[in-house]
Amino acid sequence: MEGGHPYVPRDLILLDYVPVSLTQSTILGVYGISSLLVVSLVWILSGRSSKIMKIDRVLMCWWVFTGLTHMILEGYFVFSPQFYKDKTMCYFAEVWKEYSKGDSRYAARDAGVVAVEGITAVLEGPASLLAAYAIATRKSYSCILQVAISLGQLYGTAVYFLTSYLEGDNFAASSEYYYAYYVFANSFWVVIPTIIIIRCWKKICVAVKVQEQKKAKVR
Amino acid sequence: MEGGHPYVPRDLILLDYVPVSLTQSTILGVYGISSLLVVSLVWILSGRSSKIMKIDRVLMCWWVFTGLTHMILEGYFVFSPQFYKDKTMCYFAEVWKEYSKGDSRYAARDAGVVAVEGITAVLEGPASLLAAYAIATRKSYSCILQVAISLGQLYGTAVYFLTSYLEGDNFAASSEYYYAYYVFANSFWVVIPTIIIIRCWKKICVAVKVQEQKKAKVR
Repeated sequence: MEGGHPYVPRDLILLDYVPVSLTQSTILGVYGISSLLVVSLVWILSGRSSKIMKIDRVLMCWWVFTGLTHMILEGYFVFSPQFYKDKTMCYFAEVWKEYSKGDSRYAARDAGVVAVEGITAVLEGPASLLAAYAIATRKSYSCILQVAISLGQLYGTAVYFLTSYLEGDNFAASSEYYYAYYVFANSFWVVIPTIIIIRCWKKICVAVKVQEQKKAKVR
Repeated sequence: MEGGHPYVPRDLILLDYVPVSLTQSTILGVYGISSLLVVSLVWILSGRSSKIMKIDRVLMCWWVFTGLTHMILEGYFVFSPQFYKDKTMCYFAEVWKEYSKGDSRYAARDAGVVAVEGITAVLEGPASLLAAYAIATRKSYSCILQVAISLGQLYGTAVYFLTSYLEGDNFAASSEYYYAYYVFANSFWVVIPTIIIIRCWKKICVAVKVQEQKKAKVR
């Protein structure tokens, strides 16, 4: 390995790089199983209230899952610039060492990636948990909050893909990592926010229309 | 001038750079006067309809002004990677040669800046004009559209400032240019979107509440 690491560009200098210790299946397995546990827990707890519709329970699962991913996983990345030196087999460092094979800008600490991840971890993470709470307690800001966070996720993903494209789109260790990590993993944060925006956008338009009609009647 | 240009870092290579020809006051004057003309035109035309409230007319002025700035000025930047070579005294090239003194990442074609400006020019520009139309014609999506664009403007500005901060915040030819162009000029796109988001957010929450109450009555 030229440069002592598997990342791209090959001449990227990462002093004291410590290779990933956990296997790919362990890293993905832990994330998959913890996500499944979180989603199951939210599904069961939200099912105790007969007032919460099924679609809202699904949304709550998404918001808690994405919120914890933003805060814990992405939060670790934002505040651990030297994760690639980690020798302790810390799970979170292993995640980012592995993910960097799909997008080495993470190991290289690219400013665009750090800026987007910073906004995502610090603002969108807590806001996502708030969205789950707002759905459960039927807050009037529930829909607009969901639109706001989803737009942020879409904007972040757009900046993420565009900056890579503008810099040559060559940051993956292989095309398998490129499609599995960079394209497939991120596609969830394109498709799901888009669906949520369309749904909430329509609901807000209906609410505004109803209010306008009510106002017109009063006149 | 080391490197033959006034930008920072001083060792930035800009082959065939042609210095800015118009004076600062001409560049700012043309932008100021054309903006004033646009705003006056929107104010007068929107005043012809007695149905449009004053606050909505002010908002229409903002949306047309910011939409045209995004599409024309920022659009030129996005699709003119070699503006710094321009010899024709093209006004738009002069604008970006001048603005690059406050943030040389524009001349250097920084990927983060180009990504944000691309989203702003291509998506937010036309959407801003649509927002002005939606206000004038009292569309039910008027509020949510204004929140969406304003959030995009805030997100873009956040990425813009954060990436500069992460890369050392040293891209200005002097502290005067730094404060006048980089800080002051951009501050409008922090303050005004924030005010619009707060206003529209509240209106949407009220509309949702009214609709919920109506639903509860029907039951």
